[in-house]
Amino acid sequence: MNKIRIAIDAMGGDLGPQVVVEAAVAALEEKNNLFLTIFGEEVQIQAALNGKSYDQERLQIVATTEVVSNDESPTGAIRAKKDSSLVRALYFAKEGKADAFVSAGSTGGILTGGTLILGRIKGIKRPALATFFPTRKEPILILDIGANVDSKPEYLHQFAILGKAYYNGTFPKTNIRVGLINNGAEAHKGSALTKAAYELLAADKNLGFVGNIEPREIHSGNYDVAVCDGFTGNMILKYAEGLSSMIFSETKAAIMSNALSKLGGLFIKKSLKQMAGKFDYKKYGGAPLLGLETLVVKAHGSSDALAFKNAIYQCSRFLEADITGEIKRMLADAE
Amino acid sequence: MNKIRIAIDAMGGDLGPQVVVEAAVAALEEKNNLFLTIFGEEVQIQAALNGKSYDQERLQIVATTEVVSNDESPTGAIRAKKDSSLVRALYFAKEGKADAFVSAGSTGGILTGGTLILGRIKGIKRPALATFFPTRKEPILILDIGANVDSKPEYLHQFAILGKAYYNGTFPKTNIRVGLINNGAEAHKGSALTKAAYELLAADKNLGFVGNIEPREIHSGNYDVAVCDGFTGNMILKYAEGLSSMIFSETKAAIMSNALSKLGGLFIKKSLKQMAGKFDYKKYGGAPLLGLETLVVKAHGSSDALAFKNAIYQCSRFLEADITGEIKRMLADAE
Repeated sequence: MNKIRIAIDAMGGDLGPQVVVEAAVAALEEKNNLFLTIFGEEVQIQAALNGKSYDQERLQIVATTEVVSNDESPTGAIRAKKDSSLVRALYFAKEGKADAFVSAGSTGGILTGGTLILGRIKGIKRPALATFFPTRKEPILILDIGANVDSKPEYLHQFAILGKAYYNGTFPKTNIRVGLINNGAEAHKGSALTKAAYELLAADKNLGFVGNIEPREIHSGNYDVAVCDGFTGNMILKYAEGLSSMIFSETKAAIMSNALSKLGGLFIKKSLKQMAGKFDYKKYGGAPLLGLETLVVKAHGSSDALAFKNAIYQCSRFLEADITGEIKRMLADAE
Repeated sequence: MNKIRIAIDAMGGDLGPQVVVEAAVAALEEKNNLFLTIFGEEVQIQAALNGKSYDQERLQIVATTEVVSNDESPTGAIRAKKDSSLVRALYFAKEGKADAFVSAGSTGGILTGGTLILGRIKGIKRPALATFFPTRKEPILILDIGANVDSKPEYLHQFAILGKAYYNGTFPKTNIRVGLINNGAEAHKGSALTKAAYELLAADKNLGFVGNIEPREIHSGNYDVAVCDGFTGNMILKYAEGLSSMIFSETKAAIMSNALSKLGGLFIKKSLKQMAGKFDYKKYGGAPLLGLETLVVKAHGSSDALAFKNAIYQCSRFLEADITGEIKRMLADAE
């Protein structure tokens, strides 16, 4: 297997560089074709490395002094903070010293920095963030989940191509079913945007487009790739988090509400825990920003070491499957 | 208490006129100021009434021969089917013979028919469908949940006024917290639509606008009224159904997966059932179409007799609280 070289922004996540360093060390130990370069505050990174044993040939540290935070304007921050871990790591990848970039930092910063510094694949109008959601059967890939809050119909058509290529490289499956998230199953339903997108999707005969996906069908397992504008996708992502967390906590409160059900709760604990694992974003790694010349993966802001390690592995799988190459081939076919 | 006169479309729901008739008879028995007129196929309605005892003075039947279905163009159907239960009942209300109209039929038909036949309140640009969702604390009112898939910023501002008036007439509460559903909590976040709507909402000092509601906060109980365009609201409505049904069925499957947790499941059954009741749309009745001169309530398509009875009661509460009057007062204040 070829070398996989990944540039890592250690300063982005809510839990600080320590979990990123932990993730990197664990990933190096488990996969011997990984070569990692960590960007961030040197003192914190060295402290996190202290006492850990790892292959020093495959782990480099690049000291940076600035951090792009969630509450600043992405474009302004990318321009002003030349010595931020985000900007330095992106240029490192741009110069061909890494094959992928991963960060748990500001979504806006990663989107803007990734697009400006690494550049889009020729022909791609807008890159899209994509992530897997659990269903009753196999996971479903939804995009865009937040890169383009205002989208045009032709973006949605390209999201379908990007998503299909990514799905294709991730799961060994033929007949990938691509759908459009819409407020009704019937072809004539929708907003001005989804109606126009429907026409474009239906006209592309290579796509495997199977029609509208009603929101109550998203988790049915009857679709593989679901496209929508970034506002809608971000809604789904965040709403799913809020609603499932309320249901789980209300279930727990109901179980704790009396002695009998408390006892019952002990008996079902293990089964419920296994089930809840299906809803754990950690095992899905991060969300790739599809459509750029170099791979960018956005890890969840609150990633722990396990989640971040899975985001690193996601880079590795993405590169091994040559998903960027597949996107280019599909774009050429669509023309 | 004054007479409450309601025109009922018996032909709309998935379960047919029988559940509507059952609901009407039960409502008449429990509330003696109700006067109901049922529109629909006479033979079916009479068959459903057969053997039931009820106050014949307060229940009229108007025989109609046509039905507006879900899969025809609403505007075309309203024009063509003059003898449909929907159109006849709406004209009955228009002529002042009923104070409200309720149907479990085609959302498009009810919206179009309601707006064309009954007319908007002066100054209202678009009526909105509103419904309550459970939260960790008190319910939250979300609108628009599907009447306006393409909305303008000024519609969202009016939705806030409509929603606040409805909330106000439903729950005795001061300091109603009105928020805008958006893809981020910060004021500068959002799509072109939500950014512009934010400005309008923030500028209306009578509104009690408290800012953006991130989708993960919708069920937090920290907001009373949430506004959004009809595409987003319809997404939330249908996605909540799909996701919660998946979680409940996966939970059940997990509990049934082995003997120990099956036993535990018996112990927690009652507590879980009580909890799941919180998520049951039936107790919330239907969704009023706010902003029309005469009240229109859309009951869930799959309403059973209990759900439909609650939709009838909802009409009654709405009228007793004079919510249409409150909307007019608030509109006058906002000018």
